[in-house]
Amino acid sequence: MTAATQNTIKTPSPTMIPTLQKYLPVLDWGRSYTRKTFSNDLIAALIVTIMLIPQSLAYALLAGLPPEGGLYASIAPIILYAIFGTSRALAVGPVAVVSLMTAATLGNIADQGTMGYAVAALSLAFLSGMILLLMGVFRLGFLANFLSHPVIAGFITASGVIIAASQLKHIFGIDASGHNLYELLISLWQHLGEFNGFTFAIGAVATAFLFWVRKGMKPMLRSWGLSAPVADIATKAGPVAAVVLSTVVVWLFSLADSGVKIVAEVPQSLPPLTTPSLSYDLVSALFVPALLISIIGFVESISVAQTLAAKKRQRITPDQELIALGSANLGAAFTGGFPVTGGFSRSVVNYDAGAETPAAGAFTAIGLAIAALALTPLIYFLPKATLAATIIVAVLGLVDFSILKRSWGYSKADFSAVLATILFTLGMGVEVGVSTGVVLSILLHLYKTSKPHIAEIGLIKGSHHFRNIHRHTVETLPHVLQLRIDESLYFANTRFLEDYIYNRVAGDTPLKHVVLMCSAVNDIDLSALESLEAINERLQVMGVTLHLSEVKGPVMDRLKREHFLSELSGQVYLSHYEAHQSLRLPN
Amino acid sequence: MTAATQNTIKTPSPTMIPTLQKYLPVLDWGRSYTRKTFSNDLIAALIVTIMLIPQSLAYALLAGLPPEGGLYASIAPIILYAIFGTSRALAVGPVAVVSLMTAATLGNIADQGTMGYAVAALSLAFLSGMILLLMGVFRLGFLANFLSHPVIAGFITASGVIIAASQLKHIFGIDASGHNLYELLISLWQHLGEFNGFTFAIGAVATAFLFWVRKGMKPMLRSWGLSAPVADIATKAGPVAAVVLSTVVVWLFSLADSGVKIVAEVPQSLPPLTTPSLSYDLVSALFVPALLISIIGFVESISVAQTLAAKKRQRITPDQELIALGSANLGAAFTGGFPVTGGFSRSVVNYDAGAETPAAGAFTAIGLAIAALALTPLIYFLPKATLAATIIVAVLGLVDFSILKRSWGYSKADFSAVLATILFTLGMGVEVGVSTGVVLSILLHLYKTSKPHIAEIGLIKGSHHFRNIHRHTVETLPHVLQLRIDESLYFANTRFLEDYIYNRVAGDTPLKHVVLMCSAVNDIDLSALESLEAINERLQVMGVTLHLSEVKGPVMDRLKREHFLSELSGQVYLSHYEAHQSLRLPN
Repeated sequence: MTAATQNTIKTPSPTMIPTLQKYLPVLDWGRSYTRKTFSNDLIAALIVTIMLIPQSLAYALLAGLPPEGGLYASIAPIILYAIFGTSRALAVGPVAVVSLMTAATLGNIADQGTMGYAVAALSLAFLSGMILLLMGVFRLGFLANFLSHPVIAGFITASGVIIAASQLKHIFGIDASGHNLYELLISLWQHLGEFNGFTFAIGAVATAFLFWVRKGMKPMLRSWGLSAPVADIATKAGPVAAVVLSTVVVWLFSLADSGVKIVAEVPQSLPPLTTPSLSYDLVSALFVPALLISIIGFVESISVAQTLAAKKRQRITPDQELIALGSANLGAAFTGGFPVTGGFSRSVVNYDAGAETPAAGAFTAIGLAIAALALTPLIYFLPKATLAATIIVAVLGLVDFSILKRSWGYSKADFSAVLATILFTLGMGVEVGVSTGVVLSILLHLYKTSKPHIAEIGLIKGSHHFRNIHRHTVETLPHVLQLRIDESLYFANTRFLEDYIYNRVAGDTPLKHVVLMCSAVNDIDLSALESLEAINERLQVMGVTLHLSEVKGPVMDRLKREHFLSELSGQVYLSHYEAHQSLRLPN
Repeated sequence: MTAATQNTIKTPSPTMIPTLQKYLPVLDWGRSYTRKTFSNDLIAALIVTIMLIPQSLAYALLAGLPPEGGLYASIAPIILYAIFGTSRALAVGPVAVVSLMTAATLGNIADQGTMGYAVAALSLAFLSGMILLLMGVFRLGFLANFLSHPVIAGFITASGVIIAASQLKHIFGIDASGHNLYELLISLWQHLGEFNGFTFAIGAVATAFLFWVRKGMKPMLRSWGLSAPVADIATKAGPVAAVVLSTVVVWLFSLADSGVKIVAEVPQSLPPLTTPSLSYDLVSALFVPALLISIIGFVESISVAQTLAAKKRQRITPDQELIALGSANLGAAFTGGFPVTGGFSRSVVNYDAGAETPAAGAFTAIGLAIAALALTPLIYFLPKATLAATIIVAVLGLVDFSILKRSWGYSKADFSAVLATILFTLGMGVEVGVSTGVVLSILLHLYKTSKPHIAEIGLIKGSHHFRNIHRHTVETLPHVLQLRIDESLYFANTRFLEDYIYNRVAGDTPLKHVVLMCSAVNDIDLSALESLEAINERLQVMGVTLHLSEVKGPVMDRLKREHFLSELSGQVYLSHYEAHQSLRLPN
């Protein structure tokens, strides 16, 4: 990127953006579109198109849909995202985890290959689109926050394992099904008698080749003296080579007659106009899965978008991203697709290939449309085992159990959430897995904040600082209990505070004052206020005065709305040092 | 209370208590039991017994059980609490809200008056006892924290309304049923044809009389020159007077023959030995209600216990209270009772009457046992309308809609939780009501903390203090963004922080440094750590350095376990002033 382009595509500050332009980012970057941007975008589109053809076919297979569905799901969504999206490099389409979730959801509704299955895929994309759109319009993007990073990491790792296992049937040339690892392995075992040697040979070689392309090819090409960009493009064309070679082999040796399953007839057509079904039964069966798919897709997409935007100091607007992804999914629903989102690998490729605006996406869509219209006869003999190999190699890159070790070292609460997410996803499927992770991380958070850290503090001699009496040598006053509460006070921890104070005060006869230092108390809800009232009243009955110190502005504003401050037996001190000084002498 | 007794019953500090004594508080107060304590306890027990006889009968009626069940439910539980409980004045037995919840639960299982209903009541008490006991042993008392004060207040108010409405049938002498206000009112309306004038006369007079006893009698007696304690005891005997008078009237005029429903034959017996049924179906139907009953009962009981204990600077141990209440409920399950807890009014009466140790409870149990054995023939003609009047007058004291006004003024989040609790309790019954309140308050709390207060700060000239640039006149540095985060960082708010920082930095070209002041950050979970890593990395890509200041000890300890500090592009400053000084000059 040169300094010139950086200036051309300057991001305006949000207050400056007029309403229409806010909802149609295309109006912003479209105005400053130059010939140079155009050629950059075109080259990026070409590279991404070559990469996306096998990937789209493979993800359709993963979702349980006919291969052309993967192409259709990439065309309209990419164009819609180009109009509404705020990321300049994000590439939208079918991605592994969302395709797996689609398959898991639709498997409960209809049998693969039936009309009902394809219609349910459209409905799922429609619902997902509506949910994203509404979340964007009503600014509900914060709902995605409840998916914690460790839960996402655990979920993606476990999903990767399930996806890889689900593709083994194509490698072995057998039938198998199941929505969790246990079911899949049992089913694979039961069908092992159908094993097809030719299929396995193709699948195993393709897998090995694609792994080598990923790890060993680029260094080899470089050692042969090829430049980095050329080696890079050659690496990206690896899956295409696998597709071409295996198709030719199957065709040459008529392996389809020997039981190798092939893609066969794919209609030569632009994306068809389709209508999702919105029957009550279907919508109620699909709603929760659609919500999970939307949120997981959004989280995956926005983190890719933000990573890429940061590199050019560009701005991503999460609410507008929801609208863009929602539109993309609605587009998929009406053009024979299935749920889509911004994908990591395709976006990185797009960015690295020099895409500067969403127009690159539009050019990619044109490329894929040409493929759908003209190239499908060429993949008649493409073996499904090759597509499965593409998927396996792609998703094993997602599998990363190191999050277990990392979270174990950092916090046992995070570790529990990851472990539960992984185990439940592997053992009970994607929906149960991710829901368990979300609920558990909320409960663990509440548990942690329900037992806040309370430090008994004293004055560090010769300073105005107060520190934990158990960690530092400090001056304390026998008739004053000084406590620093390291948490906002709310319903889940007020009883803990009450118990703590009563227990501390009950046995300590010389005590005359309790001072609560509130510098880390960011909120006091009504439960906590009533607890403070109860503490104040009960301490008064015990002959002990309650004081507060260093109460924050917004908290003080709220306390002033109630009678508490006038009922408080002691005072509110601006600084804790002031409290310490004024209570120093017993009276 | 004299200084002497205060010394006699000294509470030892918790570290001094040996294990057995911790679980059997009776070993503590029992050792120092004197003749004077005995006589004080005996007098209190006498007064409480007189008050409890009509109350126990009435609450059994409310729970849908035969009246003697109320007496049985008071005897064994009181003795067990006396052995295991840590409160010296708490009186355990049937209480209004728990009796209503019992009726609501059992109504879904069996018809009132059947054997199945009575057995289910025992099973409910058994489950509730086991839940409380296990919560105590495994220190799960914090679960009760999730019932926020506003939710409890709303729940008790709405329950009071439902209880009063459920008793109107006894006042009108008609049949009616329903577990929420709507069902009750419809049912009352439909049965209005059965209206019995005699019953209504008794019910209405009893209600009016009891209201007057509550409000007008004591001042009148005082104005007649009676001393305060005598007037007090007379007031407490009011319900007994209503019982005696109405029984005599019904007997004298043979009103039972005119359709006035009476208590009729009550077995003359000590509490029978009973066994709860633990069939799988029954246990799974009762488990959730038993959990709600346990938690609500515990919350009610512990707040009464703590209020009374504070008056004598005594200590309540919540986990031991769970064990004591659990034992009390197990006792009820095996002696013909139903779920019990510590009641507010009976405990206050017990305390005011001078009870000094749990022995007062044991004496009350003896009094009630004598009543169950000898006095039941005397209440043959007691009209149910009188018992209903007792309940109505008692529960209307619980109804207090002012929580709506208070929470409205204090915080809209708390208000929403109260309003939802009240509306759902009235409209859909107690279980749905309280569950809605709990879930909603958790969601609102998460929502609040997911959008933390972040202040852009600057230096107040001539000081070391930093304040919000929008609230104060402060010195800022154009190349340094200084942010104070007023919330712990965890998964629900990390995206908010990321978005905030990216948006703020993206448009601001001169910016070279971002300093996050962490004095109010009490925790950083793994999600937040990964967000900070992403922020650090992306800011670095933008040419901006990230610094932290005033990180707390425990948070710093945790950060040190990870590579973050070594990857941080900037520094961690001990004080924010230090950061400001060192970054003052652009480099």
